[in-house]
Amino acid sequence: APPEIAVIEGDGIGREVVPAAVEVLEAVGDYAFAEAEAGDATLDETGEALPAETYDLAASADATLFGAAGESAADVILPLREAVGSFVNVRPARAYLGVDALRPETDLVFLRENTEGVYAGHEDRLTDNVSTLTRVVTESASRRLGEFACEYVAERGHDGFTVAHKANVMRETDGLFRDTVLAEAERRGVDADTVLMDAFATRVCLDPEQFGVVVCPNLAGDVLSDLAAGLVGGLGLLPSANVGEERGLFEPVHGTAPDIAGKGVANPSATILSAAMLVESLGDDDAGARIRSAVEGVLSDGPRTPDLGGEATTREVTDAVLARL
Amino acid sequence: APPEIAVIEGDGIGREVVPAAVEVLEAVGDYAFAEAEAGDATLDETGEALPAETYDLAASADATLFGAAGESAADVILPLREAVGSFVNVRPARAYLGVDALRPETDLVFLRENTEGVYAGHEDRLTDNVSTLTRVVTESASRRLGEFACEYVAERGHDGFTVAHKANVMRETDGLFRDTVLAEAERRGVDADTVLMDAFATRVCLDPEQFGVVVCPNLAGDVLSDLAAGLVGGLGLLPSANVGEERGLFEPVHGTAPDIAGKGVANPSATILSAAMLVESLGDDDAGARIRSAVEGVLSDGPRTPDLGGEATTREVTDAVLARL
Ligand SMILES: CC(C)[C@H](C(=O)O)[C@@H](O)C(=O)O
Ligand SMILES: CC(C)[C@H](C(=O)O)[C@@H](O)C(=O)O
Repeated sequence: APPEIAVIEGDGIGREVVPAAVEVLEAVGDYAFAEAEAGDATLDETGEALPAETYDLAASADATLFGAAGESAADVILPLREAVGSFVNVRPARAYLGVDALRPETDLVFLRENTEGVYAGHEDRLTDNVSTLTRVVTESASRRLGEFACEYVAERGHDGFTVAHKANVMRETDGLFRDTVLAEAERRGVDADTVLMDAFATRVCLDPEQFGVVVCPNLAGDVLSDLAAGLVGGLGLLPSANVGEERGLFEPVHGTAPDIAGKGVANPSATILSAAMLVESLGDDDAGARIRSAVEGVLSDGPRTPDLGGEATTREVTDAVLARL
Repeated sequence: APPEIAVIEGDGIGREVVPAAVEVLEAVGDYAFAEAEAGDATLDETGEALPAETYDLAASADATLFGAAGESAADVILPLREAVGSFVNVRPARAYLGVDALRPETDLVFLRENTEGVYAGHEDRLTDNVSTLTRVVTESASRRLGEFACEYVAERGHDGFTVAHKANVMRETDGLFRDTVLAEAERRGVDADTVLMDAFATRVCLDPEQFGVVVCPNLAGDVLSDLAAGLVGGLGLLPSANVGEERGLFEPVHGTAPDIAGKGVANPSATILSAAMLVESLGDDDAGARIRSAVEGVLSDGPRTPDLGGEATTREVTDAVLARL
């Protein structure tokens, strides 16, 4: 039987870019698609942003392609990451030929811890005045991320990786994170160095080429990868993979873009690049490479959507990608 | 009696840039200086990075000028911020004419909460596997920051401010922070809007002019202001003021720069600009404006230290600033 791919368009431009990526998937392989609903519209209709059927589908499908959700994003995407058992969010951030970028030499991959930190945080309103959030860092999650990082750099021929952290302030928690990831690198003979997350924010602007693969706690990965998006020209081109042991969830880093939703001019590139990561997760590296090179070709000399200064529609860009496959 | 200024050079280039700023202070006003030690060298000599005398001096002086500390930075600067009763760290980040900047149009001021968040965090190693940090956000600290922000924008003629937060994930804590600061703005008729801190990281790179005064929780302010430093050409030009009710602590945002320490070529601009904020805190706005305009003049057409592509020494740049006062 063909692999099952759960398809969750969500809200806003998710409803435009996900169908584009599904067409690309149909063109490169034999997949069984199963659609499910989530997001603001679903919340309005059903009272739940993430219905149990959608959660269960993501938890059982071989892979899930997700678009974006509006106000309810956290209630949708965080449980979905858990549904697929994801422990790392892989976020490549690179500039593309032909696309305006503040730092065209940027070529980074963030490996973001995907289960804990403040995201696992238990929050309390202790008194009228005082609220607390308990941030959790475990050795086991840090080690699993460290193992993944070592395998990732070995498979892809990177020199090593950098651990971004704030262990000078969060000594116990980020200290445990940093030391555990470094120990895993040491054990496997992988080069690893460290950088304070605040220093990273300055240094990546000044000279992004000094970094390659960056391993981060959850919130640090969220913010620093969005910073990198700013250096490569915006969120419109960034794909991501929420990787678990058995399955994954693939989503553009961008949101629902309410200002252009429904107009048929959303840039489908980030979602199509997420589909490339999806087919690779299913073992089809060849299809992944074909999709990526088609998108790169279109970005460099094909039709462009308005966010990249062009006048093309989602349909035209998708057709151009399909034509290059 | 003249105001008392505590002077703590610290380590590395702190020992070069602080004396430069003291010369500038001597040139614009009548101050009584009291020196004290802190940092890595002090730790080696005395077993304490921040001796009680130094803490007490900062806690009683009218203002403190601090340079930088090495590995022991967190053990020095965090208690010193507390010693002066600082509740907000004011971090202007702007580009200067004549200085290479990734985004020359950047002109931001971060108002960073300076007492809590993860910095007030109690940490625990619960088991071999599990560590936690309890992040604290109070309504009272958020309100005090909100009041300060309202006064700051009113005094300086800003349109309003933006609250950066991550309340979609840290609902209770960052929600309390955001809502309290917004309520204070509403109460005082100050315009305020909000942005997710991750979205801020992307958007400030793409178009820094959409932001002005940015009000942040502690760690968000740390990272986002360092990001802004990257947009204006590095940490070498960023001053900061740790403001308390009675007194303040003024420090460059940069560190000890061990690679160039002792060579006499450190850029004193950030520390001299911190001295401008210091004299303003003592009520001498005129001296503050004179210092700032002298530094701007030198940056635009005076001698430059190597970090700005020149060959001048700290001495030469300081003399050029003194000559323009
Ligand atoms: C919507 C939000 C909960 C989410 C996150 O913080 O992880 C988003 O910012 C992202 O990075 O995918
Ligand atoms: C040294 C460190 C504790 C400090 C901080 O995190 O506040 C520094 O990064 C800063 O921003 O002044």
